[in-house]
Order: sequence, then C-alpha cells, then structure tokens
Amino acid sequence: MKIHYPAGVKAPTNSREITSKTKRRIRPKIAVGNRGMAFEAAINATNDYYLEKGIAVIHKKPTPIHIVKVDYQKGAKITEAYFQEPSTTDYNGIYRGKYIDFEAKSTHSSTSFPLANIAPQQVKHLRAVLKLGAVAFFLIDIVKQDEVYLVPATYVCDFCEEKPRGSIPLDEIRSHGYRVEEKYNPRLDYLPILDAHFFL
Amino acid sequence: MKIHYPAGVKAPTNSREITSKTKRRIRPKIAVGNRGMAFEAAINATNDYYLEKGIAVIHKKPTPIHIVKVDYQKGAKITEAYFQEPSTTDYNGIYRGKYIDFEAKSTHSSTSFPLANIAPQQVKHLRAVLKLGAVAFFLIDIVKQDEVYLVPATYVCDFCEEKPRGSIPLDEIRSHGYRVEEKYNPRLDYLPILDAHFFL
Repeated sequence: MKIHYPAGVKAPTNSREITSKTKRRIRPKIAVGNRGMAFEAAINATNDYYLEKGIAVIHKKPTPIHIVKVDYQKGAKITEAYFQEPSTTDYNGIYRGKYIDFEAKSTHSSTSFPLANIAPQQVKHLRAVLKLGAVAFFLIDIVKQDEVYLVPATYVCDFCEEKPRGSIPLDEIRSHGYRVEEKYNPRLDYLPILDAHFFL
Repeated sequence: MKIHYPAGVKAPTNSREITSKTKRRIRPKIAVGNRGMAFEAAINATNDYYLEKGIAVIHKKPTPIHIVKVDYQKGAKITEAYFQEPSTTDYNGIYRGKYIDFEAKSTHSSTSFPLANIAPQQVKHLRAVLKLGAVAFFLIDIVKQDEVYLVPATYVCDFCEEKPRGSIPLDEIRSHGYRVEEKYNPRLDYLPILDAHFFL
C-alpha cells in the first residue's frame, strides 16, 4: 500500500522510528521495510476517523507480551519481556450493533497470498466468532500492485482448512474479495463494503 | 472473592507466583495481596469455559505496553518497556451475535466503590460502544463481603459523569446490579444475567 496525498499535501519527510506512541500522529515515510507498518497505520487512522465520528468503535489489540522482570525502583520499568503469539485476530469492535473481527495482512508476492501468514489459532478463533454471528474478514494488502481487499473470513478459513494449495492466488483474492479504495480521509473506508455485503 | 471448592476438592497449596502463563492452569491460593488477580483468574476461567462450549468468545485484552528497546540478538528480548494506560475496557467479545464489553474491578472497601477505580477514557469508551448497541457492564468484586455484581455500564457511567459523590455506595451497587453467584464451573456464570436483563 502506498500512501496517496491529495494535491498540495506534502508527504512528511520525517524518518525517525515510528513507535506506538507516535504512529497515530505522524504519517510515516514509506520504505520497503515498513510498508506493513504503513498499512497498520492506515487502518488505525481509519478506525480513529470512525471513532471520532461515532460510526464504529474498532481497536487494534495490544501485542501480547510475556513479562519476566519489572524494575519497580525505576517507576515500573519492564527490563525483560518477550513477544507472544496472539491467540486471536488483531482487530475487533462494534459497528451497527454487531461484533466486528478482522485480521490485516500484507503480501509482497505478486502472484499469491501464502497461508503461512495465518496462524492456525486465528482460523480457529474466526470460526468460533463466525458461529456466534460475527462480521469477520481479512484486509489484505497486495503491496506490489498497491491494492487492498476485504475478503470474507469464511472464504479464507475454508481455504486454510481444505488447503488445495499452500497459498491463495491473488486472482482468487480479487474475485472473492472487495476492493477497498484508498482515500485521503478515511484512508481505507472499509465499512461501506460491510453495509453492501455483510448487513443484508 | 474467595474461591469455593466443591466437597472433596482440595484447594491447591501451591503458592508460587501466578504468572500469565500459569494462571489459567492452576487455581491460585488466595492471599490478601492477590485477590484482584484471583478475580481476574476466575473471569478468565469462566470465559475459557464459554469458549470451549462454543457459548461466547470473550477475551481479556493484553495490557498495552510501550516498547522502547528490543535486543534482536537475543531472540527479540524486550529490554526496556513501560506499562501504558489502557484506553478501553479489559474485556470484549461476542455473545448471541452481540458485541459484549466489560470492565472488572475489585473493591476492598466495605461501604463503597471509589470512582477513582475507573479511568475517564473508559467511561468515554463505554458511552461510545453503548451508543452503537453494545451490551456493556462492570463486574464488581466486593472483596470483604465476598460478593460479585454485574452492574450495567449506563448506571456506572451516569454516576461517573454526574458525580453525586466520589464513590458509589455498595448498597447502590447491590440495588442496581445483579449478583453473580460463584460456582465450581463456570466460576462466575454471568451470561444468564445478560439473557435475563440485557437480551429482551
């Protein structure tokens, strides 16, 4: 996903590290290595927009961290901790009274989306929430072609379980998914797709 | 909240520290200092039960942590990080197709529940999800009297905003909330209260 700025708006040249504290405030400069982060920033900015307008409340869950050591003499400074495998998806919340659940993924391949990107426990989680009536999907960023698709979770879960091959061809993503057009604000306006295809 | 074991089931005598890794597996020995943790463990065990039975998918969100330094030479060991103030509530998920959102709090006072326990951004968050049709509430553990109540978020938010006083008298909690009886399994069976009072 590239970031498109409207006429007259200059892309920021700030190249300092984007931390969780700053990423909501500055629009990151895109380098090959942090496109996944730019995609996440675009989703977060979109969710911030929805929250501000009272349209939806959807948040990214914090990364689960296993804390080993905390130094309480230095104002609760964590000195040893490790990243944990998430057991659910990254995003959830509420829209039009319904529970919303999704996972965002980028692929750098120009032909397919590798299933290795999706953890088995995420498929299990999505099946469980779908069974209870959730609106669940993937947002897939095809980096090289600069396209973002909203793909129903049922399709992706079926593919992961039946595994006709180790990756989903991008043409299948395109035909089973719905293109999310990029705009200035909200950046990735995915809720109208839910209105049209999930709230029937 | 004390833990009641059924006849013939001995409380574990294991007194080692309960970490996020072990707390789902062992039933903690209750000491004054970790009753809040025991309450959290009871809620997590209840949610695990609901998940296993396919009744509801409700998870505690990981604590947000601001990561400053990561040592990638030691397998992504986080060497400097700090706890962040959560901007939402601790628990959310789905039950009967609806978005569920709640916060769990313990009070050690025998007369009232201090409003200082609730962050203003949590009230703001609860108002936002309520407006969109969420089922939102507090689970309040009155430690000294060994009672747990499910209190509608609207009541608590009203009290926080109107602030007739700095704490909610426990009698008000009792009259506006619904008692959650403790059982062996699920430990704090709060969903029947939602069936009776929130899904009308």
